Amino acid sequence: MPEHRPFISLATDFGAAYTAICAGVMYGIVPSANVLVLSDEITPFDVREGAMLLRQALPYLPRGVHVGIVDPGVGTPRRPVAIATGRGDVLVGPDNGLLLPAAEALGGVVAAHALENPAYRLPEVSTSFHGRDIFSPAAAHAAAGVAVADLGPAVEPLPLDVPPPAVAAGELTAPVLYTDRFGSLVLGARPDDLAAAFGAPEPGTPLDVVWTVPDGTERTARVPFAETFGSVPPGDALLWTDSSGWLGLAVNQGSAAEALGLAGAASVVLRAVPAA
Amino acid sequence: MPEHRPFISLATDFGAAYTAICAGVMYGIVPSANVLVLSDEITPFDVREGAMLLRQALPYLPRGVHVGIVDPGVGTPRRPVAIATGRGDVLVGPDNGLLLPAAEALGGVVAAHALENPAYRLPEVSTSFHGRDIFSPAAAHAAAGVAVADLGPAVEPLPLDVPPPAVAAGELTAPVLYTDRFGSLVLGARPDDLAAAFGAPEPGTPLDVVWTVPDGTERTARVPFAETFGSVPPGDALLWTDSSGWLGLAVNQGSAAEALGLAGAASVVLRAVPAA
Amino acid sequence: MPEHRPFISLATDFGAAYTAICAGVMYGIVPSANVLVLSDEITPFDVREGAMLLRQALPYLPRGVHVGIVDPGVGTPRRPVAIATGRGDVLVGPDNGLLLPAAEALGGVVAAHALENPAYRLPEVSTSFHGRDIFSPAAAHAAAGVAVADLGPAVEPLPLDVPPPAVAAGELTAPVLYTDRFGSLVLGARPDDLAAAFGAPEPGTPLDVVWTVPDGTERTARVPFAETFGSVPPGDALLWTDSSGWLGLAVNQGSAAEALGLAGAASVVLRAVPAA
Repeated sequence: MPEHRPFISLATDFGAAYTAICAGVMYGIVPSANVLVLSDEITPFDVREGAMLLRQALPYLPRGVHVGIVDPGVGTPRRPVAIATGRGDVLVGPDNGLLLPAAEALGGVVAAHALENPAYRLPEVSTSFHGRDIFSPAAAHAAAGVAVADLGPAVEPLPLDVPPPAVAAGELTAPVLYTDRFGSLVLGARPDDLAAAFGAPEPGTPLDVVWTVPDGTERTARVPFAETFGSVPPGDALLWTDSSGWLGLAVNQGSAAEALGLAGAASVVLRAVPAA
Repeated sequence: MPEHRPFISLATDFGAAYTAICAGVMYGIVPSANVLVLSDEITPFDVREGAMLLRQALPYLPRGVHVGIVDPGVGTPRRPVAIATGRGDVLVGPDNGLLLPAAEALGGVVAAHALENPAYRLPEVSTSFHGRDIFSPAAAHAAAGVAVADLGPAVEPLPLDVPPPAVAAGELTAPVLYTDRFGSLVLGARPDDLAAAFGAPEPGTPLDVVWTVPDGTERTARVPFAETFGSVPPGDALLWTDSSGWLGLAVNQGSAAEALGLAGAASVVLRAVPAA
Repeated sequence: MPEHRPFISLATDFGAAYTAICAGVMYGIVPSANVLVLSDEITPFDVREGAMLLRQALPYLPRGVHVGIVDPGVGTPRRPVAIATGRGDVLVGPDNGLLLPAAEALGGVVAAHALENPAYRLPEVSTSFHGRDIFSPAAAHAAAGVAVADLGPAVEPLPLDVPPPAVAAGELTAPVLYTDRFGSLVLGARPDDLAAAFGAPEPGTPLDVVWTVPDGTERTARVPFAETFGSVPPGDALLWTDSSGWLGLAVNQGSAAEALGLAGAASVVLRAVPAA
């Protein structure tokens, strides 16, 4: 069901010109499209950063086709995919986990298909620029109303490769996945992991956060587990669960990275506060 | 009176992705909009640079809604505002002076209202990203035809905080507000200040310009007060009055910053040339 | 013959804001246009880089008006031009060779006219910002259906200034014009030059490539002359002829600049392999 002015977003690590070439290919196929460049400046080959950006941004964008390309595997046999989401979006990109966190934030994966149908690629496919030759044409055709199932065979998309959390009695070690522009940290762990380590914490329960800064020094902060930023006074830190169900460290009206000195920490250890 | 394809411009210090999220929020509210990113690379928190850019750019953009966000005060009680201009534009951004010089260049402030009506904000307003949650929805609703007065109570917008000129007998000290891409300097003084210091100069009258470069050396140049660039030969410097009524130092077909060695000067002193 | 939503692309060395001002001027003249910023980050004043980018990108963009501005001569008497191409595009920019390689890739120059008609400029033309005052209005009017011939008198556009190849018996010295994002090199020579130096090579014929790296060391590689990337195994280098008819050095699924150590080479010598 093509819309009058189908919405397409585009996030890459290509820089301005190669990203615009992708947009140009899409306009050639769907002249009525509205193509928004979400980013052309993702750190090259940083799939995790791209995944976190898409997860954070796409819920605020109109329903449509969203292309994400951070593709260290271009030229290798990794699959290109399109993923239909519960909200009604189509996500297009390499099958390397880049799209999965965003798909979860948009209602989950409803269907996923490899982009193998040559009718929805450019006539000549290079080995180096799949953004132009495979992803952009597929996205444009999907925006024009082609069903995701017509793009190629159904596949099971690969998850994002993140270090797993380590659960021990009274202690959860969680990797830092991403620090956003506001200095909030996304951790690679969920409340279930916390519950496995030391029981589901009540809102307001204090926890100890321990981490190592780049010079090797260990640091500690005591922060409450809280439901929203507003549960703590401005300037105070909290451990919370974000809209995708991942734990995060933040400061109400501030930067957790700065306020706690968490910049550069690769992981954090969360510990129950010993009974007095 | 909504137009068929309402024009919205957007200038921020956010970088590509967060600026595009703002555009995405606007497209969600007004799918027919034409959102032009004027800049996503203003120097972070540099309100004055942002103000000068908006003042220089907006007169060349179509009449519409123009969002400017350089907001060191996000999370504090500073007001978000919308300003209706004499030309028929609506300017949206923080009430920190960022929008005022552009408003003057667009026919002056006709009305200003605080963005307090929750109907024209996102349902959830974060403390850290008012661009997404307050400014973009307000701008989109204004572009869709909502009257500025419906966005919130009338307010008196704050002026841009610039160092005042210092007038003395025969001497005017003016801060350098901005050096544009072409090497022309905008000074924080007007012809009236010049007149107060040593009488209104006739076009063609030479003046001495004195300034201090970063290494502490004082420099001098003698330049004419002239009405247009074309009044002096190519390569020659002039003191002139720009379209917003501010004094400026420029070089016809050249860069005043380079030709005179003015780069890094925080202020300049303008002196009448002593009679021979 | 104006289209419903005429397509305009825009590539400059201006940075975000000044490029967006150009787009804004175009929207003021053709509100229905679709303006795609192809790049705002060409290396300042690098006409050759801009020319290679336009040549590589424009064949993938919709037919329309394409503005390219890299203009070291702004303020001097160099002409602004519009070029009609065989594919039906109009290219707009300074007459310094920037547009010619792209014009060749789009079916060749059909007509070229200087942008002298004041009806298709802004009312006031500055000496420093022809992008805003001359190129953007001309492009917008062309997109709105004004014939190229109405923009000004017919001219013969200047070619891109590239060092010529040097042909000797058994040896062709070709300048490196450009290294693209994938590490492929475009050489300033054509198959005819190769034929003049040592006879037209058959596909598969090996050649010796000799070059000097920045530290003065001479290096050599033996690569086949091949028709397509796919003619050689992944990871292997080849000399080939690109879609515009220029010789290039590339690596199938790889970077020639990296794999061969060609980064920084200003020219390469191509030699026939001596008979055993």
